[in-house]
Amino acid sequence: MSQPSWIPDPGPDDQVIAETWLFRLHRRRFRSVRTGHAHDYYITDLADGVHVIAVTPDDEVVMVRQFRAGSGRESLETPGGLLDPGEDPGEAGVRELREETGYAGDPPVMMGVLRPNPALLSMAISTVVITGARPVAQPKPDVGEELAIVLVPAREVAGMIRDGRIDHAVCVAGLLLWLSDRDGEAQR
Amino acid sequence: MSQPSWIPDPGPDDQVIAETWLFRLHRRRFRSVRTGHAHDYYITDLADGVHVIAVTPDDEVVMVRQFRAGSGRESLETPGGLLDPGEDPGEAGVRELREETGYAGDPPVMMGVLRPNPALLSMAISTVVITGARPVAQPKPDVGEELAIVLVPAREVAGMIRDGRIDHAVCVAGLLLWLSDRDGEAQR
Repeated sequence: MSQPSWIPDPGPDDQVIAETWLFRLHRRRFRSVRTGHAHDYYITDLADGVHVIAVTPDDEVVMVRQFRAGSGRESLETPGGLLDPGEDPGEAGVRELREETGYAGDPPVMMGVLRPNPALLSMAISTVVITGARPVAQPKPDVGEELAIVLVPAREVAGMIRDGRIDHAVCVAGLLLWLSDRDGEAQR
Repeated sequence: MSQPSWIPDPGPDDQVIAETWLFRLHRRRFRSVRTGHAHDYYITDLADGVHVIAVTPDDEVVMVRQFRAGSGRESLETPGGLLDPGEDPGEAGVRELREETGYAGDPPVMMGVLRPNPALLSMAISTVVITGARPVAQPKPDVGEELAIVLVPAREVAGMIRDGRIDHAVCVAGLLLWLSDRDGEAQR
């Protein structure tokens, strides 16, 4: 990765605009290394996250349906959440899968790191794959989470992305990468 | 789409926390239809957006590299931006492609709608495909945008996603869907 083309240029206009238990919104001035031009950006700092593609022995993907306040709609997603301070994405994936669904499986395999909105949000979200997923406990969702567990046959995932039933960009990107890996392996 | 399982429950804790030219951050209380439990959510309202997969006659994807303040890094992305009020996503895609890269091509074809973060952000982002893309004008980036145009051979896109050189989730999801469509057509 090369050096950023804009660098922080702190001054009196830099300001924390809002701070909650979940995130900090601030305005920060950056300056272009090339042109010297300055611009104020709004940045929401929050913890990094993880999404888990958990696959059962019957080749079903363990998904959760829940209300999402941003979109104001139900959303069908791979389980996931924010990392605790210092937590490894693989560990966090195992924890979130268990909390949200009660499932556990083989050791997590890291698939990649995505940024849901690198313009506005600091967060990066890892995708991990957990095969051999089976129910081992009762789910323990966080306060304000009401989750319905949905087992989606792997062969139906691509169609549900195409018709918009799965539309969370991070889940879609992770699932398509995973499907493409499987197809590649099947062809070798 | 079924009814949401949580509905707005406005009260004294509902509050606009920050309002800028770009977005409005507010706290809103929702109540679960099923359990009656109430929870306060933070929601950032901003305009919907569009990303454009523009493909040249030489089968290159027209991408832009730019600094992103949220991640604090350079990001290699498909061109795109926010819709003007009342603007159609296809029209907006044509406009953003031309403003950011100076390219234009065949009429835009809608591929799908994704949500970058349905928990925190209201926005939906459409992906449109524009084939026959050629440079027709000088780019006219917005204030604070410094864009480098990068032509990526279509056959290299999947590898650049896998090694993390393309990591914006909306771009990754759109590009993988597009690649999967092409592969499907090639096999028919």
